[in-house]
Amino acid sequence: MLIQLVQIKVQPGHRDAFLRAFRLNWEGTRTEPGNIRFDLLCDPEDENSFSVYEMFRDEAALDAHRATEHFRKCIELIDPIMAERRSKRFFLPVMVEGAAADRG
Amino acid sequence: MLIQLVQIKVQPGHRDAFLRAFRLNWEGTRTEPGNIRFDLLCDPEDENSFSVYEMFRDEAALDAHRATEHFRKCIELIDPIMAERRSKRFFLPVMVEGAAADRG
Repeated sequence: MLIQLVQIKVQPGHRDAFLRAFRLNWEGTRTEPGNIRFDLLCDPEDENSFSVYEMFRDEAALDAHRATEHFRKCIELIDPIMAERRSKRFFLPVMVEGAAADRG
Repeated sequence: MLIQLVQIKVQPGHRDAFLRAFRLNWEGTRTEPGNIRFDLLCDPEDENSFSVYEMFRDEAALDAHRATEHFRKCIELIDPIMAERRSKRFFLPVMVEGAAADRG
């Protein structure tokens, strides 16, 4: 299982464009068999600062995600409106519903 | 909807005791009607550094959670083995499956 929290900072004035672009990716990703969680979240203090809590069954599922049209189209649309490089924080699952086996 | 990422740092040598205590809380919390996500995660670089990705329907659901025996018992058991104060990061839901209404 692969879990990551992706930080996305959008340039001021481009929030709506970002949400339109991300909506395609969100709707498509939730139909992927290898995806378990894909939550788009926002910082209560900064409406242009987003986090995506992502959980995929395994590396192959994440690779398949990155090969999809909805992911590629989203990246194409949001890259020009990023305020900074996206960053990622990785996690290991310990007790996660839907995890193949808890590693408690 | 209330979303938070709780950071928990356990004193070295107490990981198993922490997991035993948290297991009670995890199993109980997932039966609470107001709980949507309760993922216990670990830092790949530090086996004593945990994060809990928590999502509750609303403030009342989180209050109900804090009043449960499984939560109180867990806190009682883990407080003495914390390496530092627990910290929390809050999020707003933008596109979350299970959210009453997407605020895209």
